[in-house]
Amino acid sequence: MDPAGMTHTTLPPVIALTCGDPAGIGPEVVCLAWAAGPHARARLRVFAERSILADVLAHRRGMPVLAVETVAAADPRPSEAGTLLVVEPAVTPAGAVAPGVISAAGGRAAAVAVEAAFAATRCGSAHAIVTGPLHKEALHMAGYDVPGHTEFLARACGLPDAAASMMLWLPMAAADDTSQRGLGVVHATLHESLRSAVARLSASGIEAAGLRLAAVLRPLVGRPPRIAVAALNPHGGEGGLFGDEEARIVAPAVGRLAGAGLAVTGPLPADTLFLRASRGEFDGVVALYHDQGHIPIKLLGMHRAVNITLGLPLVRTSVAHGTAFDIVGRGRADPSSMLAAIDAAVRLVEAAGATA
Amino acid sequence: MDPAGMTHTTLPPVIALTCGDPAGIGPEVVCLAWAAGPHARARLRVFAERSILADVLAHRRGMPVLAVETVAAADPRPSEAGTLLVVEPAVTPAGAVAPGVISAAGGRAAAVAVEAAFAATRCGSAHAIVTGPLHKEALHMAGYDVPGHTEFLARACGLPDAAASMMLWLPMAAADDTSQRGLGVVHATLHESLRSAVARLSASGIEAAGLRLAAVLRPLVGRPPRIAVAALNPHGGEGGLFGDEEARIVAPAVGRLAGAGLAVTGPLPADTLFLRASRGEFDGVVALYHDQGHIPIKLLGMHRAVNITLGLPLVRTSVAHGTAFDIVGRGRADPSSMLAAIDAAVRLVEAAGATA
Repeated sequence: MDPAGMTHTTLPPVIALTCGDPAGIGPEVVCLAWAAGPHARARLRVFAERSILADVLAHRRGMPVLAVETVAAADPRPSEAGTLLVVEPAVTPAGAVAPGVISAAGGRAAAVAVEAAFAATRCGSAHAIVTGPLHKEALHMAGYDVPGHTEFLARACGLPDAAASMMLWLPMAAADDTSQRGLGVVHATLHESLRSAVARLSASGIEAAGLRLAAVLRPLVGRPPRIAVAALNPHGGEGGLFGDEEARIVAPAVGRLAGAGLAVTGPLPADTLFLRASRGEFDGVVALYHDQGHIPIKLLGMHRAVNITLGLPLVRTSVAHGTAFDIVGRGRADPSSMLAAIDAAVRLVEAAGATA
Repeated sequence: MDPAGMTHTTLPPVIALTCGDPAGIGPEVVCLAWAAGPHARARLRVFAERSILADVLAHRRGMPVLAVETVAAADPRPSEAGTLLVVEPAVTPAGAVAPGVISAAGGRAAAVAVEAAFAATRCGSAHAIVTGPLHKEALHMAGYDVPGHTEFLARACGLPDAAASMMLWLPMAAADDTSQRGLGVVHATLHESLRSAVARLSASGIEAAGLRLAAVLRPLVGRPPRIAVAALNPHGGEGGLFGDEEARIVAPAVGRLAGAGLAVTGPLPADTLFLRASRGEFDGVVALYHDQGHIPIKLLGMHRAVNITLGLPLVRTSVAHGTAFDIVGRGRADPSSMLAAIDAAVRLVEAAGATA
């Protein structure tokens, strides 16, 4: 099975996994994903201190991985379900990390792991990074003044924070196994007040979001994606009665995207658009503000959703959930998002290889 | 079984059903709901021309109702699944109504039916109105210059349009059969542009929405409801970084609602709030703008959702779906929303009786 149409004459891609903050559910979802993981399609490596994973496997219920083995980043061997292959960072954080507690040691462990995974992708011994959830406050306590993984990696690439953006990706069951189905969401505005988002909304911002969305969706769904652009106002503006942004800003952006050759529809009323998209009518949606995209994706599948980084010269995906300190170690962590993030990373690496 | 704790020494309440626009799926969902309907808890009556229903029963697949019988509004008999009891309007619309086609005749039939149902509730021969979906344009073609049922009934009561508002109600499966569970949403702003909604948002508007929500939820859930108030901005404003409306407007409104004795929480980030509410943590949510409430309710259960009219001196509920002209007569109409609307109307009538 090779969805991207490549023939593997060599080994499958190396995927560098990180646990995020070791105090959260990251180590658990990494171990659970490893046990269920797609070893035929990816050579998995966990970038973490061995002790973190050995502890989780020893003390948590329902973890079927048998052994933890330290390897070099350049070790070419295939991964397999029974032995977790760990690449330990050269610099090990000082101090133990207590489960479910915010600490500088936890933040530092998360940062050191992603730095090591980044270095491995830069030197070619890994093909993609898949990150577990970190805790922003722990990161700050450890002295890393950065909002999250995305900006961390942007800076590591020597780029400004704004160069990187994000797609929320929710894989869905496909009618047949040969194609992937799912829903991708890119935001035209994101981390700002709703008032500011409305004021700053622009046709060029929507157009850029649509182009980024289409570019990353194509390898994920294996064909030209069908894109919808949400309306800003109730009922899509009700013909101008409830706002003019649809006619003034959104429709021109949709026109430019259609002119660029995309299969694009909009502006569509947001309340029914996401229902239609969830039923398979669209592969991707341009959301105009944060909650317009996040409310439906979280409702449709909080535990399956994936973050995919756009705009950086590397493939990086991430779980879309948080550290979930309240359920650490209780056997309740769900690896679906980690598995979906690994799957998306493999598809993106394969597609990049196919077109290289 | 009497969820409101009443003992029926008399017959159950009379519920006046209307089909909305007869060109839509209204007649179908009324007939399907009748066949599955709660005749032990409600005396159902359909306010419609007999021919509309006879036609639907004769030509549509899967309609198990056997007979259509015309009765007077004051007929006291119980309803039963096999015979649809029809109260025909005194004034019958001129002209046939073609299925799936917008027409003045369809709009007029919808309006005449709701007028007759309203008259029946006013003279005491019906206890509540449950309306099917109408088509705004057909209503306008018939000469009724009114946005919908809610305003139609407000004017019939001699009140301004603004006196009436709406709760979206999504019934959910309860852990036990003795209590009702569900999610109600009332909006602090509704049919206006997002820009205007943000500008006009006020603590008093949020407070009024919370009080209306709690008042109608209490009889529906059978206990003091747990209310959440959504935040306006991403991440609930991220401590002021993404907007100050949470601290300036929403939190004071929540404080006043708590001071009035409500079990209320907020402001909560909207993207996770609806996930938490859908899992049963809250009975009701105050949404701050149209799509914030409509996106999640439509995703969670478009076909089960109900509109409940607030602010009028009568009990009126409605399906939350539209006329669905594209699936008329194809055996695809789903009566879940109509059944949920009947159930909600019965509970509200019983609760009003219990407290009268």
